[in-house]
Amino acid sequence: MEKADRRTRIAAMAAMLARNPSKPFALGTFCETFGAAKSTISEDLAVVREAVSRYGQGEVEVAIGASGGARLLPSVAGEQRAAVLYEIAQRLSDPQRILPGGFIYTVDILSDPKYVCAMAEILASMYLRTNPDMIVTVETKGVALAFEVARYLSKPMIIARSDAKITEGSAVVINYLTGPSKRIRTMSISRRALSAGQKVLLIDDFIGGGGTLHALCGMMKELSITVVGSGVAIATRQPEKKRIDNFKALLVLEEVDTVNEKVTIRPF
Amino acid sequence: MEKADRRTRIAAMAAMLARNPSKPFALGTFCETFGAAKSTISEDLAVVREAVSRYGQGEVEVAIGASGGARLLPSVAGEQRAAVLYEIAQRLSDPQRILPGGFIYTVDILSDPKYVCAMAEILASMYLRTNPDMIVTVETKGVALAFEVARYLSKPMIIARSDAKITEGSAVVINYLTGPSKRIRTMSISRRALSAGQKVLLIDDFIGGGGTLHALCGMMKELSITVVGSGVAIATRQPEKKRIDNFKALLVLEEVDTVNEKVTIRPF
Repeated sequence: MEKADRRTRIAAMAAMLARNPSKPFALGTFCETFGAAKSTISEDLAVVREAVSRYGQGEVEVAIGASGGARLLPSVAGEQRAAVLYEIAQRLSDPQRILPGGFIYTVDILSDPKYVCAMAEILASMYLRTNPDMIVTVETKGVALAFEVARYLSKPMIIARSDAKITEGSAVVINYLTGPSKRIRTMSISRRALSAGQKVLLIDDFIGGGGTLHALCGMMKELSITVVGSGVAIATRQPEKKRIDNFKALLVLEEVDTVNEKVTIRPF
Repeated sequence: MEKADRRTRIAAMAAMLARNPSKPFALGTFCETFGAAKSTISEDLAVVREAVSRYGQGEVEVAIGASGGARLLPSVAGEQRAAVLYEIAQRLSDPQRILPGGFIYTVDILSDPKYVCAMAEILASMYLRTNPDMIVTVETKGVALAFEVARYLSKPMIIARSDAKITEGSAVVINYLTGPSKRIRTMSISRRALSAGQKVLLIDDFIGGGGTLHALCGMMKELSITVVGSGVAIATRQPEKKRIDNFKALLVLEEVDTVNEKVTIRPF
């Protein structure tokens, strides 16, 4: 490949790193792509690193040495985080979102890249250091969020389903109780998807009592898989004591007042 | 904000555009962020544009004029496209993927960001000019793919489900026949999600006879919504004549030979 000038290298490198969060790029790859020496590439990376950090576009981690490389880690500055969570909370607090039964209509927020990417990047940055092998979610509303977390961490995602599908091959199935009515529900996960000894991060859109995530944890235990944490978009204030402990939520649903048509939801 | 030097501006701009595909950034925003004049920002953008295009990181569209701005459009060069689709076809052609009933295990590919992002970017670039308001998919296997297409096009996604959920509010429901056995199935979509007069792009993981997508088209017609196209990851060779016409597939499943344990799948 013909040599690129410095500005071109810097622009292309920044775009490559930003398009592939958490994916490591070897210095050697950059050298080959741009026809430049390692020392030159290192200097360019220093510029990219400083620039993306200064303008809130993530943190570039540069590893020094023979096998050195760089990757862009998900990172959301405190004020940016507060602003986006406040905006989502505001949108969700619209009384027109109240559905029969006191549920809140959240589907639009949970499938709009504008909000999903922001929430996923915050969750990914929270669990970055736990270094999971895989992201696990439960169908269906949290799938986009979980997939985005997987993308930011550059790991695969797996979906547990309410019924085993023929297209998933043999499955592990668990029955559990969920919701205020303690209904028996079934959850199944493809056996091919996971292997013993792996570490997984659970991501879901919502936690009420915690029955679903508790069941998912039980299923992981069954498969000798370690759960490094559970990240959710929205947690209800009540019950205070959930069936799982180590979860983190982005938003708290304080109250749904169906009589006065009022929803109170705020950043965690 | 204090002034940034040229290299810093170029790196930060490239990262911003790459992190937010299809999202327009006004020149004025860049001017403010970097404390630079419009003419300076325009020159920087020209560098970013040339660099990302040269190294296959997308196409920057720059709009000139008072309300001028820039955005990074999804774009996959021909050779890159051929390479990634060939790799996915190879992985899917593994005979160990054959499941009882002649199905192919595809879940891992369809939930791995590495493959999903590549396929989604190709689909997004194919439908870029149709300018849909919304991406519509059917639960569950195609959700990650559809969401990524939505992300690349910077539009929201909506999921049609096999059963109306209470958390989606009132729904439009349709019954349809699908599969070789012509079973009756139900599909529902939240009424709040769509409005008459909109244009949607349908995205799914798989098309066999086309019954599901045909039903989805019927539902859109019912709602006075225009379908601008249907993009799928995998289409079966047979039947040649599907129940919908205007679809595009990335891969073709030629044959599943359960006796000799052979799968033939190739780029479209």
